[in-house]
Amino acid sequence: MDFAYSQKVDALRQRINDFMEQFIYPHQQTYREQIAASGNPHHHAEIVDELKERARREGLWNLFLPDSEHGAGLTNLEYAPLAEIMGRVPWASEIFNCAAPDTGNMEILAQFGTEEQKQRWLHPLLKGEIRSAFAMTEPDVASSDATNIQLTITREGDEYVLKGRKWWISGAARERCKIFIVMGKTDPHNPVTHQQQSMILVPRDTPGLTIVRSLPVMGYIDNEGHCELSFDNVRVPGSNLLGEEGSGFAIAQARLGPGRIHHCMRAIGMAQYALELLCQRAAQRVTFGKPLIEQGVIQEWIAQSQLEIEQARLLTLKAAWIIDTLGKKAARDAIAMIKIVAPEVQTNVVNRAIQVFGAAGLSDDFPLASLWAHGRTLHIVDGPDEVHKRALARSLSRPYISPKTSSKAP
Amino acid sequence: MDFAYSQKVDALRQRINDFMEQFIYPHQQTYREQIAASGNPHHHAEIVDELKERARREGLWNLFLPDSEHGAGLTNLEYAPLAEIMGRVPWASEIFNCAAPDTGNMEILAQFGTEEQKQRWLHPLLKGEIRSAFAMTEPDVASSDATNIQLTITREGDEYVLKGRKWWISGAARERCKIFIVMGKTDPHNPVTHQQQSMILVPRDTPGLTIVRSLPVMGYIDNEGHCELSFDNVRVPGSNLLGEEGSGFAIAQARLGPGRIHHCMRAIGMAQYALELLCQRAAQRVTFGKPLIEQGVIQEWIAQSQLEIEQARLLTLKAAWIIDTLGKKAARDAIAMIKIVAPEVQTNVVNRAIQVFGAAGLSDDFPLASLWAHGRTLHIVDGPDEVHKRALARSLSRPYISPKTSSKAP
Amino acid sequence: MDFAYSQKVDALRQRINDFMEQFIYPHQQTYREQIAASGNPHHHAEIVDELKERARREGLWNLFLPDSEHGAGLTNLEYAPLAEIMGRVPWASEIFNCAAPDTGNMEILAQFGTEEQKQRWLHPLLKGEIRSAFAMTEPDVASSDATNIQLTITREGDEYVLKGRKWWISGAARERCKIFIVMGKTDPHNPVTHQQQSMILVPRDTPGLTIVRSLPVMGYIDNEGHCELSFDNVRVPGSNLLGEEGSGFAIAQARLGPGRIHHCMRAIGMAQYALELLCQRAAQRVTFGKPLIEQGVIQEWIAQSQLEIEQARLLTLKAAWIIDTLGKKAARDAIAMIKIVAPEVQTNVVNRAIQVFGAAGLSDDFPLASLWAHGRTLHIVDGPDEVHKRALARSLSRPYISPKTSSKAP
Amino acid sequence: MDFAYSQKVDALRQRINDFMEQFIYPHQQTYREQIAASGNPHHHAEIVDELKERARREGLWNLFLPDSEHGAGLTNLEYAPLAEIMGRVPWASEIFNCAAPDTGNMEILAQFGTEEQKQRWLHPLLKGEIRSAFAMTEPDVASSDATNIQLTITREGDEYVLKGRKWWISGAARERCKIFIVMGKTDPHNPVTHQQQSMILVPRDTPGLTIVRSLPVMGYIDNEGHCELSFDNVRVPGSNLLGEEGSGFAIAQARLGPGRIHHCMRAIGMAQYALELLCQRAAQRVTFGKPLIEQGVIQEWIAQSQLEIEQARLLTLKAAWIIDTLGKKAARDAIAMIKIVAPEVQTNVVNRAIQVFGAAGLSDDFPLASLWAHGRTLHIVDGPDEVHKRALARSLSRPYISPKTSSKAP
Repeated sequence: MDFAYSQKVDALRQRINDFMEQFIYPHQQTYREQIAASGNPHHHAEIVDELKERARREGLWNLFLPDSEHGAGLTNLEYAPLAEIMGRVPWASEIFNCAAPDTGNMEILAQFGTEEQKQRWLHPLLKGEIRSAFAMTEPDVASSDATNIQLTITREGDEYVLKGRKWWISGAARERCKIFIVMGKTDPHNPVTHQQQSMILVPRDTPGLTIVRSLPVMGYIDNEGHCELSFDNVRVPGSNLLGEEGSGFAIAQARLGPGRIHHCMRAIGMAQYALELLCQRAAQRVTFGKPLIEQGVIQEWIAQSQLEIEQARLLTLKAAWIIDTLGKKAARDAIAMIKIVAPEVQTNVVNRAIQVFGAAGLSDDFPLASLWAHGRTLHIVDGPDEVHKRALARSLSRPYISPKTSSKAP
Repeated sequence: MDFAYSQKVDALRQRINDFMEQFIYPHQQTYREQIAASGNPHHHAEIVDELKERARREGLWNLFLPDSEHGAGLTNLEYAPLAEIMGRVPWASEIFNCAAPDTGNMEILAQFGTEEQKQRWLHPLLKGEIRSAFAMTEPDVASSDATNIQLTITREGDEYVLKGRKWWISGAARERCKIFIVMGKTDPHNPVTHQQQSMILVPRDTPGLTIVRSLPVMGYIDNEGHCELSFDNVRVPGSNLLGEEGSGFAIAQARLGPGRIHHCMRAIGMAQYALELLCQRAAQRVTFGKPLIEQGVIQEWIAQSQLEIEQARLLTLKAAWIIDTLGKKAARDAIAMIKIVAPEVQTNVVNRAIQVFGAAGLSDDFPLASLWAHGRTLHIVDGPDEVHKRALARSLSRPYISPKTSSKAP
Repeated sequence: MDFAYSQKVDALRQRINDFMEQFIYPHQQTYREQIAASGNPHHHAEIVDELKERARREGLWNLFLPDSEHGAGLTNLEYAPLAEIMGRVPWASEIFNCAAPDTGNMEILAQFGTEEQKQRWLHPLLKGEIRSAFAMTEPDVASSDATNIQLTITREGDEYVLKGRKWWISGAARERCKIFIVMGKTDPHNPVTHQQQSMILVPRDTPGLTIVRSLPVMGYIDNEGHCELSFDNVRVPGSNLLGEEGSGFAIAQARLGPGRIHHCMRAIGMAQYALELLCQRAAQRVTFGKPLIEQGVIQEWIAQSQLEIEQARLLTLKAAWIIDTLGKKAARDAIAMIKIVAPEVQTNVVNRAIQVFGAAGLSDDFPLASLWAHGRTLHIVDGPDEVHKRALARSLSRPYISPKTSSKAP
Repeated sequence: MDFAYSQKVDALRQRINDFMEQFIYPHQQTYREQIAASGNPHHHAEIVDELKERARREGLWNLFLPDSEHGAGLTNLEYAPLAEIMGRVPWASEIFNCAAPDTGNMEILAQFGTEEQKQRWLHPLLKGEIRSAFAMTEPDVASSDATNIQLTITREGDEYVLKGRKWWISGAARERCKIFIVMGKTDPHNPVTHQQQSMILVPRDTPGLTIVRSLPVMGYIDNEGHCELSFDNVRVPGSNLLGEEGSGFAIAQARLGPGRIHHCMRAIGMAQYALELLCQRAAQRVTFGKPLIEQGVIQEWIAQSQLEIEQARLLTLKAAWIIDTLGKKAARDAIAMIKIVAPEVQTNVVNRAIQVFGAAGLSDDFPLASLWAHGRTLHIVDGPDEVHKRALARSLSRPYISPKTSSKAP
């Protein structure tokens, strides 16, 4: 047991921190202004390309990919602390070509894609030339239960035909988003419910695919856009199927592990950043004759926040380590745990920071309000907290349940 | 002791509920569309005037004013349950001419205004012809401590000259907002710190008064607008002073009691509405073979929410009763209590409802996200929760502190 | 709506407060010493009889009984604030002949007892000559679900024969406890599950009835004793049946309403007392240069505690008012609410007080540790919190559930 | 970074687990009976000596001591997971001669003791022949602030004379407790407040030293005894001073680090044990047609409990690792963190387990009630939670505070 980052990781942390200090934090205003000036909330800000070019030149590129053929060859445990740093500013991950949902999409394309699919979609993604989206959630059903999915993918001759609706498809509104990986049912009546689903690649300009709208999230229209999509007899060639028919659920599972590590580490980065902002502000503001930072209740918040962050960080690093050493399946409980904890810590800490900032914390003069809104979504996306708690409890309960006492409820 | 609403109140509740059912709930979409169509988030939606006219005809007008000369002559205890119902939809209070900040402004104009001031500002407000704003909070200081106020009001001949900045001035962006009641310091060096402040009336079109911007609140640009204002040598006649020089703090205190009852009851109305939406949704959505409403964790939320709401409601009604029977000063602790409790209940319940709605709850397809954002502000406006807890604790502590053990800290 | 206690209640509150000040608080040490000196934790302390005689002479006697033939004829709403005051010291209620479980037992004897039963048991109870117990909970089943009860009551000729075990039978170890009201099944196969149970009177010295042991509660052996009982072919005459065969569940329900008001008000009295102790201590102790009572975190606790207490008090008073005005059935939700809230408030506040007292708060030098232990039991006795939350949620959910969406689960 | 226990640790964990399974868990009843039979709650149960002998033979002895001259030579990180396992049963640590307060006392004797002191006290302690106590806390002052200590240690010729009182001196009532390490002031007017204190060795039978009483803890009289002591002109030779005059505070600090790791890991062991008991019970009990373990609220508790435990465990292991690699001073924040977190997790989880057990959980038929009582003390002993939160916050705040903004408050 050893709690030190390796020298390699420490060096990378240093380089990314330096990059953030030099090029990201100082350009937050530039970024916002370029988007505002464009009149399009989903505009690809010019500063992004400049900085991507720089990061790529410096070799800070595709760090998330453990596969050293395509990426940096870092383990999940090595990449996790880097994701934390990038996570402090919402648009920073893209600069290093480490932004969701592309990361997960690149992973499954690398793992399950045909050569043709790799050539056409994976390589431009790896180069940061295009963006992508992952379309799973649907509006009319509780998507936390994957068997509820209703979009149909029907084979007709050489083609597949898609019919249905999706929503909350993040990144779909981005100017450079060119490809959607879509989950649907190819075999809706298969008695093995987890073999009903398939994944398929749908280029954005395919006829019948409409972006109905970009949904606001707790008041915010994000740059990435969380879109509602309509699939009206969308036809794609049979070769667009990702993996085999019926493998959709398995691919979705494969996609989840590392992606959740990234998500959680980014959330922890946000919480740490918010705590630093909290401390800065509390040191400056004076009420009742004392700086806030010397007042008991604020001290309690600072201590409690650091406690929560440090624990969540260790838990997430351990989950990454389990994936690396024992595999994704062995990490299932650990991943459920961080999926529950990280959003909670993020919203707790950001909420306290907002309170310390007072009304300023509610505005967009500081990143806290938008961080909070993003954190709130984390309690729901990829399954609400309650579903993960249930799954975790069921897994932990297994040794205690004898066949006799267990009721037949699912 | 009697927990029944009077017949008079029950009749009014019935009438307002009916009005909401017939004219407000069904027009929520109309209201949003009219504002969206105007291209101005602070647009005065046409439906508002139609419904105001109707409410006025039906005598559901100025219900908040205990002064029967100008208003309905209801006690605070009688009005409180009506405010709860109106609070369920953010723009409903205005329909009955019961919207903040006009209500508090009308109260202090009625109480402290000269005949000329009443003629010019109070009467159009009572008729619902104009709107108003109350300008107290400032950007550079912790405004929870009123002695921090920095805007200066200097007598020069027959005029007063205002210099300084304000922000989070709610309602200032409204098309019909015509008059600002501004708090500043006329006597910044008065050793009695609570006699340094005065209030003064500043018409919106006075030269030197600039609306710098409308601040977003947790991502939302509200219809009312929470504005940053700049006062650059703004000159108004001496007759615009409200009350006497040095009475600003006292008038602010006078304004607070009933206003906080209204605020809190509206927050409770929002919570009750959110709980009803939660239950509706939970009854419809099925996961893991059962409607959400029959699942243990959701049941816990429902029970806990109703518990919190009912307790906060009783506490607020009691605070109103204390104001009516013993006066505002005697109600100080009770008002501090509800100012702490009501925002907490509102955000707790709305947050649970959002979770039950899943991603839909984050969007603006339902009113939950915007209700949450509004509730979040209630933890800060009129003093953050912590300041009220401190004040309450200090008041409760008084009997236990002997002069010897008390340190001299403020 | 009126939040003032009536003059009658105020006068009674004054008299009971005076009695507590003069005779109860100063004798807490005497009480403990007399029990310790006897060597029997269940000893009837001599001071109790002295004070009972005095309370009876003063007419502060049987205040709980709304039935003016036997008791004071107070409504539940009138009695509730008196129960709060008595609840501040665990043995004070008995002084006024208002102690559980006798109160509930007297109520059902008055309501359902035959003349003979009243003569033999109710009258000595009303005079405070004997004590009683109520035997419902069983060791081997989850008693929160009444249909689980296993003790059998079998008719044999003129007699009933009881077989089974009970535990947590409070008061059974008291020296003067002479009569047990026992719940069991007379008709265990009745398809109407709530008609399987009956209640029956079992004198303590009946052969076959054994007090197996007195159970400690969170480390404490209470004076009342929470006993495990064994019924080995216990025979009582048929005339000992309370009410009719099959009416046990209904009588239990009838017993619950007012008893829960009493319980909850006593819990609130404990919390208020603990808060007063907290403030006293916090005013005396100095750390880091300031009395605790002036430190932010302690102020937060004081404010929060008073908030919780005042809200729970109002809710409980309202529940009492509903019983008085609309009946027990209409009060079901309100009673579930207070049964959830009052224990929570009691343990929250007492826990904070313990923390302020430091190690002293853990000891028996102050009443806090034993108050906490008692409060902890309230989360479980008469049904655990979760069962009441579930019941409350199901009741609140009813309007939202259509026959179609409801699953058949109970 | 590596989250795996070393092979050496894994082997030791296995051996201690096996020992617990074979010899400790099955003898919990024996232990209680032997103490009960003796009539003395502080009796040294016979089974303890039997098992100590066995553990010593097996080499499972003095595992806590990193000093390989006297102990097992394990690092803090290696010992921590063993302390967790031992912590599951309150009297298990003693079996391996790893029980507090002896562990901390042996550490400081080994580090600061003279040869004579080691011969006379350290060696019998290492052999497990005697027990010891550590006397710091005092009744009349807030001992969380060490400068408050009032017991005086005055040099008179060759001797020191002690006058004062102590309380909550754990282990002082044990039959075999032979030596007290006492903290007092040798130089109460030293302007350097942290050089006023010294530590001195006082044999239990020294005239003038009286054990006034053994204090109950949340209703429990522990086997170890938490005693109030009176020092009335207690005289000991000058050679009994531990370290130098004025070094008392420094020695106390030196004692704290590893001791807090042990405490926290034992608390985590208790929480883990309670969770296992919770799951067992929840799998057996059925309400409303389903085992508790399949009900949503219970599942929530299971998930939440495991989450809290695993996070606290990682944090504590990291703190141990910091002590080992960077030293006690560098570990100060980490140790403050675990001192806050571990008690909270313990009481949270044990409290949930009690609720699942229902009334049985309140009794001593299961270890939960006494575990809870022990856990409650952890929020207070070695400084209340709030003091550690304050210290942690002040440490974290330092980078943000400029000399100008900082007030002079301590």
